[in-house]
Amino acid sequence: MAIHEECGVFGIYDKSGGCAESAYYGLYALQHRGQEACGIATMNGLEQRCRKDAGLVGEVFSREDLAQLNGTMAVGHVRYSTTGGSLRENAQPLTLSYVKGTFAVAHNGNLVNVDDLRRHYEYRGAIFHTTSDSEIIAYIIAQERLLAPSIERAVANTVRQLRGAFSLVVMSSRKLIAARDPWGFRPLCIGKRRDAWIFASESCALDSVGASFVRDVEPGEVAYVDLNGELQSIRDCCGKERTGLCLFEFLYFARPDSVIDGQSVHAARLLAGRYLAQEHPIAADVVIGVPDSGLNAAKGYALESGIPYNDGLIKNRYIGRTFIQPGQSARESSVRLKLNALRSTVSGQRVVVIDDSIVRGTTSNQLVKLLRDAGAKEVHMLSSAPMFVAPCYFGTDIPSKEELFACKYSLEEMCRLIGADSLGFLSVESLRKIAPDCSCGFCDGCFTERYPIPVEEQGED
Amino acid sequence: MAIHEECGVFGIYDKSGGCAESAYYGLYALQHRGQEACGIATMNGLEQRCRKDAGLVGEVFSREDLAQLNGTMAVGHVRYSTTGGSLRENAQPLTLSYVKGTFAVAHNGNLVNVDDLRRHYEYRGAIFHTTSDSEIIAYIIAQERLLAPSIERAVANTVRQLRGAFSLVVMSSRKLIAARDPWGFRPLCIGKRRDAWIFASESCALDSVGASFVRDVEPGEVAYVDLNGELQSIRDCCGKERTGLCLFEFLYFARPDSVIDGQSVHAARLLAGRYLAQEHPIAADVVIGVPDSGLNAAKGYALESGIPYNDGLIKNRYIGRTFIQPGQSARESSVRLKLNALRSTVSGQRVVVIDDSIVRGTTSNQLVKLLRDAGAKEVHMLSSAPMFVAPCYFGTDIPSKEELFACKYSLEEMCRLIGADSLGFLSVESLRKIAPDCSCGFCDGCFTERYPIPVEEQGED
Amino acid sequence: MAIHEECGVFGIYDKSGGCAESAYYGLYALQHRGQEACGIATMNGLEQRCRKDAGLVGEVFSREDLAQLNGTMAVGHVRYSTTGGSLRENAQPLTLSYVKGTFAVAHNGNLVNVDDLRRHYEYRGAIFHTTSDSEIIAYIIAQERLLAPSIERAVANTVRQLRGAFSLVVMSSRKLIAARDPWGFRPLCIGKRRDAWIFASESCALDSVGASFVRDVEPGEVAYVDLNGELQSIRDCCGKERTGLCLFEFLYFARPDSVIDGQSVHAARLLAGRYLAQEHPIAADVVIGVPDSGLNAAKGYALESGIPYNDGLIKNRYIGRTFIQPGQSARESSVRLKLNALRSTVSGQRVVVIDDSIVRGTTSNQLVKLLRDAGAKEVHMLSSAPMFVAPCYFGTDIPSKEELFACKYSLEEMCRLIGADSLGFLSVESLRKIAPDCSCGFCDGCFTERYPIPVEEQGED
Amino acid sequence: MAIHEECGVFGIYDKSGGCAESAYYGLYALQHRGQEACGIATMNGLEQRCRKDAGLVGEVFSREDLAQLNGTMAVGHVRYSTTGGSLRENAQPLTLSYVKGTFAVAHNGNLVNVDDLRRHYEYRGAIFHTTSDSEIIAYIIAQERLLAPSIERAVANTVRQLRGAFSLVVMSSRKLIAARDPWGFRPLCIGKRRDAWIFASESCALDSVGASFVRDVEPGEVAYVDLNGELQSIRDCCGKERTGLCLFEFLYFARPDSVIDGQSVHAARLLAGRYLAQEHPIAADVVIGVPDSGLNAAKGYALESGIPYNDGLIKNRYIGRTFIQPGQSARESSVRLKLNALRSTVSGQRVVVIDDSIVRGTTSNQLVKLLRDAGAKEVHMLSSAPMFVAPCYFGTDIPSKEELFACKYSLEEMCRLIGADSLGFLSVESLRKIAPDCSCGFCDGCFTERYPIPVEEQGED
Repeated sequence: MAIHEECGVFGIYDKSGGCAESAYYGLYALQHRGQEACGIATMNGLEQRCRKDAGLVGEVFSREDLAQLNGTMAVGHVRYSTTGGSLRENAQPLTLSYVKGTFAVAHNGNLVNVDDLRRHYEYRGAIFHTTSDSEIIAYIIAQERLLAPSIERAVANTVRQLRGAFSLVVMSSRKLIAARDPWGFRPLCIGKRRDAWIFASESCALDSVGASFVRDVEPGEVAYVDLNGELQSIRDCCGKERTGLCLFEFLYFARPDSVIDGQSVHAARLLAGRYLAQEHPIAADVVIGVPDSGLNAAKGYALESGIPYNDGLIKNRYIGRTFIQPGQSARESSVRLKLNALRSTVSGQRVVVIDDSIVRGTTSNQLVKLLRDAGAKEVHMLSSAPMFVAPCYFGTDIPSKEELFACKYSLEEMCRLIGADSLGFLSVESLRKIAPDCSCGFCDGCFTERYPIPVEEQGED
Repeated sequence: MAIHEECGVFGIYDKSGGCAESAYYGLYALQHRGQEACGIATMNGLEQRCRKDAGLVGEVFSREDLAQLNGTMAVGHVRYSTTGGSLRENAQPLTLSYVKGTFAVAHNGNLVNVDDLRRHYEYRGAIFHTTSDSEIIAYIIAQERLLAPSIERAVANTVRQLRGAFSLVVMSSRKLIAARDPWGFRPLCIGKRRDAWIFASESCALDSVGASFVRDVEPGEVAYVDLNGELQSIRDCCGKERTGLCLFEFLYFARPDSVIDGQSVHAARLLAGRYLAQEHPIAADVVIGVPDSGLNAAKGYALESGIPYNDGLIKNRYIGRTFIQPGQSARESSVRLKLNALRSTVSGQRVVVIDDSIVRGTTSNQLVKLLRDAGAKEVHMLSSAPMFVAPCYFGTDIPSKEELFACKYSLEEMCRLIGADSLGFLSVESLRKIAPDCSCGFCDGCFTERYPIPVEEQGED
Repeated sequence: MAIHEECGVFGIYDKSGGCAESAYYGLYALQHRGQEACGIATMNGLEQRCRKDAGLVGEVFSREDLAQLNGTMAVGHVRYSTTGGSLRENAQPLTLSYVKGTFAVAHNGNLVNVDDLRRHYEYRGAIFHTTSDSEIIAYIIAQERLLAPSIERAVANTVRQLRGAFSLVVMSSRKLIAARDPWGFRPLCIGKRRDAWIFASESCALDSVGASFVRDVEPGEVAYVDLNGELQSIRDCCGKERTGLCLFEFLYFARPDSVIDGQSVHAARLLAGRYLAQEHPIAADVVIGVPDSGLNAAKGYALESGIPYNDGLIKNRYIGRTFIQPGQSARESSVRLKLNALRSTVSGQRVVVIDDSIVRGTTSNQLVKLLRDAGAKEVHMLSSAPMFVAPCYFGTDIPSKEELFACKYSLEEMCRLIGADSLGFLSVESLRKIAPDCSCGFCDGCFTERYPIPVEEQGED
Repeated sequence: MAIHEECGVFGIYDKSGGCAESAYYGLYALQHRGQEACGIATMNGLEQRCRKDAGLVGEVFSREDLAQLNGTMAVGHVRYSTTGGSLRENAQPLTLSYVKGTFAVAHNGNLVNVDDLRRHYEYRGAIFHTTSDSEIIAYIIAQERLLAPSIERAVANTVRQLRGAFSLVVMSSRKLIAARDPWGFRPLCIGKRRDAWIFASESCALDSVGASFVRDVEPGEVAYVDLNGELQSIRDCCGKERTGLCLFEFLYFARPDSVIDGQSVHAARLLAGRYLAQEHPIAADVVIGVPDSGLNAAKGYALESGIPYNDGLIKNRYIGRTFIQPGQSARESSVRLKLNALRSTVSGQRVVVIDDSIVRGTTSNQLVKLLRDAGAKEVHMLSSAPMFVAPCYFGTDIPSKEELFACKYSLEEMCRLIGADSLGFLSVESLRKIAPDCSCGFCDGCFTERYPIPVEEQGED
């Protein structure tokens, strides 16, 4: 319930125009991937325009903005950000000019060799306005473009230098380019609407603009739309790596109506619930889920176990960014403001409750209390994600080991601390089976401390 | 999906203070009843303070506001409003001063004799700042207080004059008073937290502030907290009327975790689905619901029919007030921005889809298209509300007959216009059975054109 | 430099329309009379509309607002307010409905019998939304209208009951009415532009809308535009009183290009300086003024004395409402942010510096220091207003005796405290001669404690 | 009345801290140099922070901002900008990181070789986020720092490459540096407050923070505060150029209480009026000025001619950025909203009116009409600036020749078009004499088309 990722990206190439409006609706469909800031850059002939700011898509853009942003290409970005102050300055896409003209970059992910890259280029005279990965990626692309025969080749040469998670959409004056890191950490797919091509973080964005799904961008691929409006691809830009799509995309980040690398997100969540039922059979009267992303796992558990599913927790939909949290004295009721138990479902019952994950344990503790106050006879807490044992270096906002529940306590202690009758987590082995249709390997580093890319000595930034 | 009610009310009497904060969280729990404006008035000794504005609870109040509003009583209000311009000026509670001091009024509902009352009092010299029902109610209370021995009796004398829907919370310098109209159109309940008393439109607001449910305010009752902090009641202020709680509270307005006049809202929605299944048996492969309020009826239908329930439509949670609707040319895709079909659920299937109601038919038409585009083999549309045949005079925002789908077309025509394989509505007879635990009679005037209060010649306002 | 008045009013009757736009420019010309809030109400046929809010005229109204406010009559208001919180709710005009329809009231001034009036009407059942004088005036007008044959006669009957300062503009569905209190405390004038009639607090507002000055509204007069568009007048509504136009209008409040009751404000300020020179001859090298309202008196002093005038203090024009005042430790430099001395004017010189008034003495002390730091050899401080010895009950924001410099110290002490070489004030006798063209008597109560209306036992409000 | 310059800069080095607050008050004193955007960057140890946005100083910074910006060095900037859209992104200071750490740049002026520089560096791999001069200056400093032994020497090496107007303040982690172009187009001075050093565009900013004036930065000098807090200087960074301080600084831009290169601005304006009187003797009754910057020239004319000075035009001080201009039909009255004539001064008189400059002639035409409407018998218009005959390439916003009044018409035609009885301009010869104390040569290119730097083929940007 408290894990965040950094971004969603969107790009469209449509000679018939109206690209800003499509980007608007595409970003809106990707809003769940980032609510802090957003932006759209468009290309109209040689003229690049950009509008970006802190806020939701529906707040940042006015009708006038979209009219002014008119063009035949657009890239867009939604951003989740942990930094407090300057939300506005970290908004993407980044727009730049260099010897070959202008270009824009939108980026989702996190590099692990960014400090090395920064040092390398600073010694050669680079100056940077921000500390973002995106700016250094843009810088390398511009440098490579001085030597490379084309912008797409410059992007490919850049990809070779980057280590970490990155799904990129790049817009030059005449081309739209998408690139996905060789490990495939983050999703990126390709859609088509008549003669228009679309790149997006998730397939739900294709649906929202009436485009049909074509295929995913492959790990390590640089896909682009050429001057004839044809989709082309560069696949030789880097060696073959062990692929590692983030499993949290299936458990939590992605929208259930998205299909990632061939796997339906909704189906994966149901499957996670089914495996939970196999691993943790419980004598109970009802299975409930924690809204929103725990509901599907609960339904899967019910299907597999035969215990009836019912709605047990109701979520308040209106919590906003400026909402005032209850004071310290009333801290135990902060969950109560977001969630309320359905007494008619849980009163007198033995309840299995499934959350998408358990990070620090504080929410789980309050949930158990909430359900007991509503009359639950027994409360069995299950997590459809395994125990978190390590941080993420690839863009997911997982706290340090010192704060991770499963790093500090044994399973027994955890169960006692949250006050449940029993506590269970999905095993890593089962987790690896929840996406059987997926064409990509997985990263489960936060559950195993084994990452697709060796990460040594990753200091705090 | 497009029906709105006007308001939610909240009142708290707590000698230990902190009433503004409780009102804040109480209103937040009632936010679904109105998102346009909100306000809180508090009483601290003889000093009354008020803060109200257009916007969500989380937007209108800052931490400083709550600190300044400190007091031992508070009344709060959330408002839905159709009027475009002056949202801010219609915000409640209304705060007033008169010969006996100051008082505040928060009101949910709609009077049918407001024009008569206004004319009557204007002839006697009244002047009004607004055209709201609330101001005239406040005016009558103040007039009656000149003659009555107490403020609660003045409220009782006022109740006698009002015809229509009203759930009121009134705060004088020393007393907190709640009144519900003799017909009981809108819900109003009583809670307790240690020595504190709470009045609220729905029981979910009691839960949010850690109060326990005591009972509902009865139709025609004036309940109040006296100077000793005891709950008292006036029940003789008007004759016994045929009670008529709005059935739309169960179908749509209220939160599923609320219990109204003894009836769980969640259970009522499941039951509506069960009756739908009995009345409209369909040979189908899957039952899906339209989020959010159609989901429970779909689950009830599945339970009764044995056809499996599955998630079939995913809702985008981020639509905001300034969201730009697609242009005229793309009008048919406005539903697509809010909802997306889960191909893995509906593709190749015979689908039963249940919405909470069908008003104009435009949304249903787009839903059917959305499902067919996602591969549904058959689409059977059911409404868990009966056909709308008449307007509401008691605060629910139902369009005029000219716009109501069921007033313009036969069932067959409707089915053809929305493009479904079949179309069905819950019968009024079944509707009356969805709330078996309810202690109150029902108003189903919008489905039958028979209202608890005769309404002749109700002109447009 | 720190005295404020409450308001400016404006009204226009123009059958050819565009009244909101004229009111906008008229209020803008009156902005110096109040910068806290403003509003415009218009009448279009029977439809009254209003837009008002906290802020400057240029901030509150958009082009769309003016378009929507279109009508054939308008009243407007700018407000200065000492109250912190609810600026917005105190904004005028007040718009009301009663048995005869709707009307709007804009009011400048302060009543001394408001508590008596409020008590009187509350006993008869009145309820009030605010504690403003304006609401009680509106209430009485509505009450009187029940008995009177016309709205203008109701206003006249109201005028009879009010004691204190009031310049009113009232707009009913068909008539525009202006009333000035029998003492004539505040200015109010009449202008004409083709067939249109205009009422305004100052003649500079007539100039700004291209109207020509007709005459002032007389003390105790109710002037109105009748149904034929002719200007009419009621003069018998109250007894003849000793008139008492506020002398501070000439010294400080009014714009120098206004003419009030026949007297040019600019000329009055020059004359104040001339009398100062006669009363306080000083051997000096240069005369300077404190911008903006001390400059003219300084020029008058120079003309009379023969000592050359020069600019000696430069004002920063950009101070805004949210400007951060320097911390306590740096308190003595707050004047320095607003004013800077011109070294080339004052260095090595014997300087006479003239301010419009001296209230608490703190500003004067800083001014003297500023001039000495810039090299002034001698600093002689003169005030073109006499010593303040008493509060104002008629709308001018003069602090209590406890805070008034001249109430706490002798002239010698004052001179020593501000650090000047000499200190002088204009005498009350001379003050009474600065407006020789004025057709009205004067109120100099704050300098003499003798008011046109006896004020006994005026408690703090 | 319609000429704008681009910026004001401020820098402070104060080991005792509180630099953000000083920058705040310093920028506030420089607000007349730019009202569109502003910003402050501070250095606290190695940590650089920045806050900048569109808006006035009093609007952009909150007390919390200043508290967070605490540090021992600060640079600040106020900006005037002609570009419509992205005010916010053009705000300065620019903050950057490179191999040696972080630095900030604030810049006032305009380069003429920016296109060459940009091309030169882009060919070597530079990428730019904006099209501003400031970014390219920052880029070159960072490049030069790779080779130079110190940041101040890198700035000196940068200065050598720049052609055009630039007054810079640069802040590195440990040093504060100020640089002025070799021609000295824009002012830049040095102040001291105890151990603190201050650089500012105008001396009035020194006064506002209680600092004393030390000296001006010389054209071509790079001044800096070294690690011991001592002021040092590099003067050999470029060849000796003919100096050319912008004469419009004296006529219009600078605040009258500033002293630039030894010359009092106030005294220069008086002198301009004196020379006007010598060149254009007129038989008149009164001399008036157009507020604010024409007033001093009018006083100088009066002193020289013996014709009495009087206030003749009153300015409305409250015009804001969102003020609604009158519609096309009422275009001739837009001046009337800002200015009103004092009838008591001009009625029946032969009037000499002095404006600081005449650009397009439209304002002058309206002014003459305004004065005649107020009863002036004759109106003689004089401009204290010579005729504009050429654009400015160094940061002053002068329109193209096609729009310049004096480029399109003869003196006679101009006089007829504005409707004056006579029209005169200060001669270029006299203009050159208005700043006798100035240690710097002048640029009068906009009056002579001869610039200190040859400008050939300066295309539109």
